[in-house]
Amino acid sequence: MASAAGLLFVLCSFVALFVVEVECWRPGKPISPIRQGVKAPLPSGYSYQTLYYDQQIDHFGFANEKTFKQKYLFADQFWNKKGPIFFYTGNEGTIEWFCNNTGFLWDIAPQFNALLVFAEHRYYGDSLPFGKESYQNSSTLNFLTSEQALADFATLIRYLKATVPHAADKPVVAFGGSYGGMLAAWFRIKYPNVVVGSLAASAPIWEFTGMIPCSSFYDTTSQTWYDASKTCGDNLHRSYETIKQVAAEAGGYDFITDTFKLCTPLKSKYDLGPFMSMLVETYTDLAMVDYPYPASFMAELPGWPVAEACSYLSQPLEGKDLLRGLSRVTNMYFNYTGTTDCVHWNGSGGTPTLGYEGWDYQSCTEMVMPMCSNGSGIIYNIDWNFQQVSDACYRRYKTRPRENWISLEYWAKELKAASNIIFSNGMYDPWSSGGVLQSISETVVAIQIPRGAHHLDLRAKNPKDTREVIAAREQEINIIKGWLGLTP
Amino acid sequence: MASAAGLLFVLCSFVALFVVEVECWRPGKPISPIRQGVKAPLPSGYSYQTLYYDQQIDHFGFANEKTFKQKYLFADQFWNKKGPIFFYTGNEGTIEWFCNNTGFLWDIAPQFNALLVFAEHRYYGDSLPFGKESYQNSSTLNFLTSEQALADFATLIRYLKATVPHAADKPVVAFGGSYGGMLAAWFRIKYPNVVVGSLAASAPIWEFTGMIPCSSFYDTTSQTWYDASKTCGDNLHRSYETIKQVAAEAGGYDFITDTFKLCTPLKSKYDLGPFMSMLVETYTDLAMVDYPYPASFMAELPGWPVAEACSYLSQPLEGKDLLRGLSRVTNMYFNYTGTTDCVHWNGSGGTPTLGYEGWDYQSCTEMVMPMCSNGSGIIYNIDWNFQQVSDACYRRYKTRPRENWISLEYWAKELKAASNIIFSNGMYDPWSSGGVLQSISETVVAIQIPRGAHHLDLRAKNPKDTREVIAAREQEINIIKGWLGLTP
Repeated sequence: MASAAGLLFVLCSFVALFVVEVECWRPGKPISPIRQGVKAPLPSGYSYQTLYYDQQIDHFGFANEKTFKQKYLFADQFWNKKGPIFFYTGNEGTIEWFCNNTGFLWDIAPQFNALLVFAEHRYYGDSLPFGKESYQNSSTLNFLTSEQALADFATLIRYLKATVPHAADKPVVAFGGSYGGMLAAWFRIKYPNVVVGSLAASAPIWEFTGMIPCSSFYDTTSQTWYDASKTCGDNLHRSYETIKQVAAEAGGYDFITDTFKLCTPLKSKYDLGPFMSMLVETYTDLAMVDYPYPASFMAELPGWPVAEACSYLSQPLEGKDLLRGLSRVTNMYFNYTGTTDCVHWNGSGGTPTLGYEGWDYQSCTEMVMPMCSNGSGIIYNIDWNFQQVSDACYRRYKTRPRENWISLEYWAKELKAASNIIFSNGMYDPWSSGGVLQSISETVVAIQIPRGAHHLDLRAKNPKDTREVIAAREQEINIIKGWLGLTP
Repeated sequence: MASAAGLLFVLCSFVALFVVEVECWRPGKPISPIRQGVKAPLPSGYSYQTLYYDQQIDHFGFANEKTFKQKYLFADQFWNKKGPIFFYTGNEGTIEWFCNNTGFLWDIAPQFNALLVFAEHRYYGDSLPFGKESYQNSSTLNFLTSEQALADFATLIRYLKATVPHAADKPVVAFGGSYGGMLAAWFRIKYPNVVVGSLAASAPIWEFTGMIPCSSFYDTTSQTWYDASKTCGDNLHRSYETIKQVAAEAGGYDFITDTFKLCTPLKSKYDLGPFMSMLVETYTDLAMVDYPYPASFMAELPGWPVAEACSYLSQPLEGKDLLRGLSRVTNMYFNYTGTTDCVHWNGSGGTPTLGYEGWDYQSCTEMVMPMCSNGSGIIYNIDWNFQQVSDACYRRYKTRPRENWISLEYWAKELKAASNIIFSNGMYDPWSSGGVLQSISETVVAIQIPRGAHHLDLRAKNPKDTREVIAAREQEINIIKGWLGLTP
């Protein structure tokens, strides 16, 4: 039995992680396969045209005949009119950000003489079906589904083939990472007439109800931290009790507030839920972006940030010393560049929320990803309760998630009938828990990338790349060549 | 150049065949893969439970959370709890009618120890998402699409597996004929996680824009009649000019009215369009139902009705003699049992229209099947003009068809990525023109049935079955056994 306080943590963290509308909700911090970093400036150096396609708002009904402007980025400088089309299936955010964080495509376009297209996902960035009213209510949000997004991609490709000279007969390969990787995989299974194959990087297509234990995500998170250092993992495991103990001491809340440089003071035990939820998200995020070199994917960070974080926790720590160690971890995550004044933990500020509201809605409709923790690792005990999620969703959006829809619509583990998909996963990435880690068939191939974080393979090459990711990219290139009938 | 009169015929017949709202429209006679016969009593002898499932109205959006009662027929008397589930993907009509006309399933259920399920298609029969208001306007009709129907089938099967004892792990095979056959094939390509394979009988999945010449349907119709008798075909070919000549004579309209026993008199050249359209539909329908034995699929008819019809046209005929010969054909089609008083040709009556309005709507949205004739066969010159169809659809439903959607959504001819589908076609059937007549791969197999009409193979066995259909059914059974891992 969880204590009353424990239950609160569970409830608050559960709500904070998944849904909304309660006091412990922290906007900008729902669990989403990708969170767009915004503190870091967008890298540049990739040259493309920004174009718009008049896209059908509703592909699956005919009462609404209206269209909206779907943005896509178009780069033909490597294309010799004979090479393939590489098509990025955009995910939950502005497409420029994914474009700039998918250096792999820019790296390999020259050798394939490929035309690059990055398509923005509807309801994100500038691709808003109802303009500023797109998020107004459940009616305007009604067309935000993965099926509509896939149909967008299919119709956009049809349009490009019909209008771009020499494109008509060129094979299209889909690429995507995270939710975009799920879309790339689903695109191939639902529209193999449109794409010859898909590279689905860090695509947690099994992170849905009934396919994996709900503890998998946090188990993998724990594993990544324990791999860095057992002592570090043990410190984190113990820390939640320590936080409660310190908080219960005289001046305890002030100590925590000061030590962690919190923007808003902690005041009571009811604040501990969202505070600890912030810690969990920090650990999770750091595992996701545990890249071998400094990067600014979700935040400005050093190389191997989990190892860096664990360097502050390399000795068994207790009491306030343990909290001081933790605070160095959050400080690294939120303030590596030294320009952030304080740490937000309760929705009072924090990272801007571009794209988050869309994913919140998707989490409240199709994207039901149960996550729980039994408390045995670096994450405290977290329950999963579908009804609570559903009720919170209904309060916010007047929609209820359909728990088993995605597994029915996208074949769950029955992928034998699929072909030409690469599922790559960085094994440090918590999302690898819901990924396809073993090959399904000769053409549905899993590539595990040891010491890899969230779609590391899609990132631009780097002198500090591990041999594992270099090998993964080589294998991917060879498989793609096979799809295109090129000699590997 | 078509003459003014010729143009009228073309326009009227084109509108009569495809759309609505003009004076030559004849309700109950749009081209639809299947038209439900209503003159004949429903055969019985098949025993089933009639059940209802609370089906989601909108699978692809979350604003509308309502459900409706989807009807399905459930027959478990052959099922030994170990055999497969045979699932009929209902098409445009009440499911009982398809159930009763799909004797093949009843014939083979015992040897497979199969559970039989016949699922009604939404918006047909009793499965009305908005009850009596379902056809009220484009908003209530908005959920009448093939994608929603497939999702209905998938969710219904999930429900059955979850609730019927011993069903959970049983493989499901989909069966369908005509539009139901298209659905069966599309079901397998979009939901191979739900069905291990599909028998798509007389499924014209390529009868859409851009995949075959628009003349194919009528070319095949002509071929069937010419195969019965060249003289017969030549008589029909000449008859349209003869009709116009006779009509232009004094008392010509009265002669035609009397000879054909028309319910409403022909009065002017403007009536000739819908009258001749009725003839074309008669010839088309007779080719569709050219079964080797008396049947009442769309009308009470003798065995080999095309040959029977041609027996009235076995000599070269001219003038009024030719029209008398034609009238014996229409009399056979409309009044084989001798109980019909007169022949309807202009929408003033005729066969009841159960299910027709639904197909009209589908033809005005997804199911764009271009059909034309160059007049070289037994059908006069008929043009196809998408814009005219689209405008007529808009006037009627405030929807416009999406000409290229089906080919994008359901893979067009790119079926290499599919598996475990049988496409069977009776070669007498005009709809075979849009069917898959050559195998695509080892597992996507075409079966041609010479001398076969519209999904003859799905009908109950009959002592007069041809050796061709007997062989087709044997092949189908063996392939299905292969899908189920049974020794053929």
